[in-house]
Amino acid sequence: METTKTHVVHGGTLRYLKHDSATTGTPMTLSVFVPPGEGPFPVVIWLSGLTCTEDNFTTKAGAYRAAAEHGLIVVAPDTSPRGDGVADDPAYDLGQGAGFYLDATQAPWASHFRMESYVTGELIDLIDAQFPTTGARSILGHSMGGHGALTLALNHPELFQSVSAFAPISSPTRCPWGEKAFTAYLGSDDVAAWNRHDAARLIEAGAARGVYDDILIDQGDADSFLTDQLKPDLLKAAAEASGQKITIRMQPGYDHSYFFMTSFIDDHLAFHAARLKH
Amino acid sequence: METTKTHVVHGGTLRYLKHDSATTGTPMTLSVFVPPGEGPFPVVIWLSGLTCTEDNFTTKAGAYRAAAEHGLIVVAPDTSPRGDGVADDPAYDLGQGAGFYLDATQAPWASHFRMESYVTGELIDLIDAQFPTTGARSILGHSMGGHGALTLALNHPELFQSVSAFAPISSPTRCPWGEKAFTAYLGSDDVAAWNRHDAARLIEAGAARGVYDDILIDQGDADSFLTDQLKPDLLKAAAEASGQKITIRMQPGYDHSYFFMTSFIDDHLAFHAARLKH
Repeated sequence: METTKTHVVHGGTLRYLKHDSATTGTPMTLSVFVPPGEGPFPVVIWLSGLTCTEDNFTTKAGAYRAAAEHGLIVVAPDTSPRGDGVADDPAYDLGQGAGFYLDATQAPWASHFRMESYVTGELIDLIDAQFPTTGARSILGHSMGGHGALTLALNHPELFQSVSAFAPISSPTRCPWGEKAFTAYLGSDDVAAWNRHDAARLIEAGAARGVYDDILIDQGDADSFLTDQLKPDLLKAAAEASGQKITIRMQPGYDHSYFFMTSFIDDHLAFHAARLKH
Repeated sequence: METTKTHVVHGGTLRYLKHDSATTGTPMTLSVFVPPGEGPFPVVIWLSGLTCTEDNFTTKAGAYRAAAEHGLIVVAPDTSPRGDGVADDPAYDLGQGAGFYLDATQAPWASHFRMESYVTGELIDLIDAQFPTTGARSILGHSMGGHGALTLALNHPELFQSVSAFAPISSPTRCPWGEKAFTAYLGSDDVAAWNRHDAARLIEAGAARGVYDDILIDQGDADSFLTDQLKPDLLKAAAEASGQKITIRMQPGYDHSYFFMTSFIDDHLAFHAARLKH
């Protein structure tokens, strides 16, 4: 991995990194915060939402104060492969910046859009190889990245101690963003295959039951995507049906922006720290 | 003032605002954070550095958690007038985005570049008229905005309870950024007139002596502008010569970015809160 920028923040070291990914076949960018002290440290992986790069969370979430206090490494990857040779779409919700944390099976996406394998394989291996980690890790994210955090944690429970989300796309098989992306990336011949990438359907089916003692979700009630795209009620119903505990906090007046996330990121990092260190 | 965007953050309300300024003869933009509760609240004015708009501090500083706790209104204006009819320069350190918090006397700048009068007059009046303020206020800023905070506080001690700065341009009459800007905005016929806009020279001359019990300065020792442009040693020498107390903290490893500011913004807000509420 090549370090492109380094900053000291809250006593720790923040690096912007770039590496050639064997999984996506492209360069991939990310940021990694290492807290002060000698370590080893547990890892928290943050997955961002549509249109974001690794930079949005890194500069706007205000996460590193609490991460330094808890002694957490924080990793923020980009949201998709990018570059001239990578398929794209002019819309903001498909293609580069909109990887949806799955492995595409359809042309022209399948050759590079392999974000599930990237995050759960190559990224984790690189972090554990190049930073002083304990081997324990958790995952969280926002919107499309909340969907990513939930579905990756539910499909790969051996990799994560805990999972949380801000305003996740709760059920992409039942909202316009998800239907559009899944049609493109996974095709519409086998719609049942979509369910593996749908947090509400996974929870309803009992995925990872007994693994996660709780899942923390924050959702602003003034979020303009709440009703049409995010639909936390579907998560709530699935959790009730399957017996999975989920704590959904509706936050009054908050919207879909980083001003919402920065207001509650400390709670999420405390939630993960408690589960990463016990 | 027209509200262009509103966000809830840390329980308070953040507004992006726009108004037609009689002082600059242009539209001016700013952000205002009002903490939770009924008020009235004291005000902290943040002045940003070269190239910034009101958005950099607002999204990157992570200031609103502490501002909410202390009950502070936080105001972040733009760094200059802007627009098609406003003089500009292709360089990043002159013209739009580089107002230097003074009233220009030279063409083509004098007609709009009046940031000292704007901040100390129209902006303060607007905030006090339209928000629940106690009438007490403090000022701080970064780099060019640290210069602005110091010089405005020293020249207008009746307006501010306290002043602090991150990596300020300590003596613009003795560094390339300042020499270039002052030559353009103030002309070189009367170089002695520059000293009124030079924090180190103001302090050395005893400006506002006895008004400020302390001035807090944070400076990263890995700041690439430290030696050529910022020169905190000149502030230190001026303070020692004049008997003004200044606390200059050299912060090891920190650079000139918002990662530096977000690491110490809580200390600055606590410094001002203690002086605004006693």
